[in-house]
Amino acid sequence: MKIAQVAPLWERVPPPTYGGIELVVSRLTDELVRRGHEVTLFASGDSQTLARLEAVYPRAMRLDQEIQDYSVYEMLELSQVYEQAAEFDIIHSHIGMAALAIAPLVKTPTIHTLHGSFSSDNSKLYHLHQKQPYISISNAQRQLNLNYLRTVYNGIDLENYTLLATPQEPPYLAFLGRLSPEKGPQHAIAIAKQNGWRLKMAGKINISERQFFEREIAPQIDSKQIEYLGEVNHLEKVELLGNAALTLFPINWPEPFGLVMIESMATGTPVIGMNNGSVPEVISHGKTGFVCQSYEEMAAMIPEALELNRSYCREYVKNKFSVTQMVDGYEAAYQQLLQSRIALNGHLYSPKVSF
Amino acid sequence: MKIAQVAPLWERVPPPTYGGIELVVSRLTDELVRRGHEVTLFASGDSQTLARLEAVYPRAMRLDQEIQDYSVYEMLELSQVYEQAAEFDIIHSHIGMAALAIAPLVKTPTIHTLHGSFSSDNSKLYHLHQKQPYISISNAQRQLNLNYLRTVYNGIDLENYTLLATPQEPPYLAFLGRLSPEKGPQHAIAIAKQNGWRLKMAGKINISERQFFEREIAPQIDSKQIEYLGEVNHLEKVELLGNAALTLFPINWPEPFGLVMIESMATGTPVIGMNNGSVPEVISHGKTGFVCQSYEEMAAMIPEALELNRSYCREYVKNKFSVTQMVDGYEAAYQQLLQSRIALNGHLYSPKVSF
Repeated sequence: MKIAQVAPLWERVPPPTYGGIELVVSRLTDELVRRGHEVTLFASGDSQTLARLEAVYPRAMRLDQEIQDYSVYEMLELSQVYEQAAEFDIIHSHIGMAALAIAPLVKTPTIHTLHGSFSSDNSKLYHLHQKQPYISISNAQRQLNLNYLRTVYNGIDLENYTLLATPQEPPYLAFLGRLSPEKGPQHAIAIAKQNGWRLKMAGKINISERQFFEREIAPQIDSKQIEYLGEVNHLEKVELLGNAALTLFPINWPEPFGLVMIESMATGTPVIGMNNGSVPEVISHGKTGFVCQSYEEMAAMIPEALELNRSYCREYVKNKFSVTQMVDGYEAAYQQLLQSRIALNGHLYSPKVSF
Repeated sequence: MKIAQVAPLWERVPPPTYGGIELVVSRLTDELVRRGHEVTLFASGDSQTLARLEAVYPRAMRLDQEIQDYSVYEMLELSQVYEQAAEFDIIHSHIGMAALAIAPLVKTPTIHTLHGSFSSDNSKLYHLHQKQPYISISNAQRQLNLNYLRTVYNGIDLENYTLLATPQEPPYLAFLGRLSPEKGPQHAIAIAKQNGWRLKMAGKINISERQFFEREIAPQIDSKQIEYLGEVNHLEKVELLGNAALTLFPINWPEPFGLVMIESMATGTPVIGMNNGSVPEVISHGKTGFVCQSYEEMAAMIPEALELNRSYCREYVKNKFSVTQMVDGYEAAYQQLLQSRIALNGHLYSPKVSF
């Protein structure tokens, strides 16, 4: 199958440190290539992939000071993808609403994975385009009535996550994620401080969230009880999560997936999360962690969570959140979509028109 | 001819007070209808037009506090336009770069009027789409190498601008425009104060420019020598400009057109402008005003400008910047484009494809 994968340009694929969507796109793309598909990855020019890479800009845009208007580059990317739409059987967009207006204008079908959440503004656009084919990354994410082909959970490659059977001594709690208010690093700190636990935190700080970090987080980092490791690369991440006694996932927004939870469980470390978004679908409550209703409950569950079986946490991820399962899900969705299109139009490709 | 006019949604068409692009779109649209074309205007739902109106949002978005993300509504509008592209002979976009990626995907040609200026970001997108058909609104605006069909100057309806043969006593200078740094209201104030002139200013204050206004402009308004009238409607505008001895146009950016200059000249009031962007194309230097190299020179030219022939100013606008001439220019551009498409493809419409 000829497949276009359209990634955000903000971060490279795969991301050098943290970056959820780009990691998923990387795993999906490379596995599709391994399975024999002809894949073109549209992503930042510094991306690393088994697929053919097409880039409108040489580097990840996140930290490029020259960029004033990200939307321009997204439109450049969309131009690049859709002007060669007839070359693909399927276009798979990971960039969200920006692809909605353009996708229905070519005969090659576009499948949209919803990686984000809905706002009162973007809901209007999704509603208008509700008949386009969507993939949800959790059932919790389905807050609008759209044409969902299926839920495909994000998957990770277990080989990249070592099981660490016993946590490091002295024990600590881990927090990994962007240091933004909705990810809840401030609550992780409060839980640790109130219960005499050490906390190690890692994750990136977006420019727009620098003020939050300086005001709410930085003053609490004493590099003894509360540590901030900055952005970490993959190996450091596995070490941070795997050596932890427990990982905290104290989000206060309806996070549609939460890759950190499965990464933590893959290393054997149970997760205590807030009951928001996908959390109850991702954590097996009482087996691989706890789904809590309040920050107090999160703190209260720590002793019980320490007793959970770390090997089981890893098995659980292997059975439910592996790259294999994710790519199986996407391949099935592609097939399903193409079959329905063939039934409708009798052909896949549009003839080329020159302007 | 079946024509879609695609207006920005920020302001209604025509704008109740100030608003350059929307005023041009209004005049163009209504005149095309009068000439027998079948025109659909895509614009905010409170727009007033002789054409058929299609709207994705009931009001102008400029002051709507509920709107967090303008780009969503622009995409809604583009979805609405392009899903019915086959209904039109020509799509005429006034919304800038947002239409570039989508326009080449349908057989109906889109013509883009460039109302803004180029940035280092959006230049890349225009460059990629340089073969699409563009209209420049001044020759000065042609800073990128694009497929310009022609320059069509903005035009106004002379009937709506009364010639005021003698300025009001005591005399004053006029400034009309958004109160933003690049429009130069601060320089208008300085010129007036340093030379003992009264100055009457009017124009809107965008939310993002409120701070500039409060810091640089508000403290200088004494309502005697320096007056700010707020936003003015059309009649108030004609009165403000027509009763003025002179209008100042102290811009410090390459404004691609500058409607205020022709509105002022239409009422008989000469304009002293800075040599930026279209200013030397719009002011007839020494006849309808002066094109200056510095703010000092602007001030120095006041006595000479007071001697200019006010009736001639109006005649000049009538001969060069009327709605009639503007619509003649656009009709010619539409014809030119359709002829070239027919030559290339042999037909205009694409068959409908159902998905």
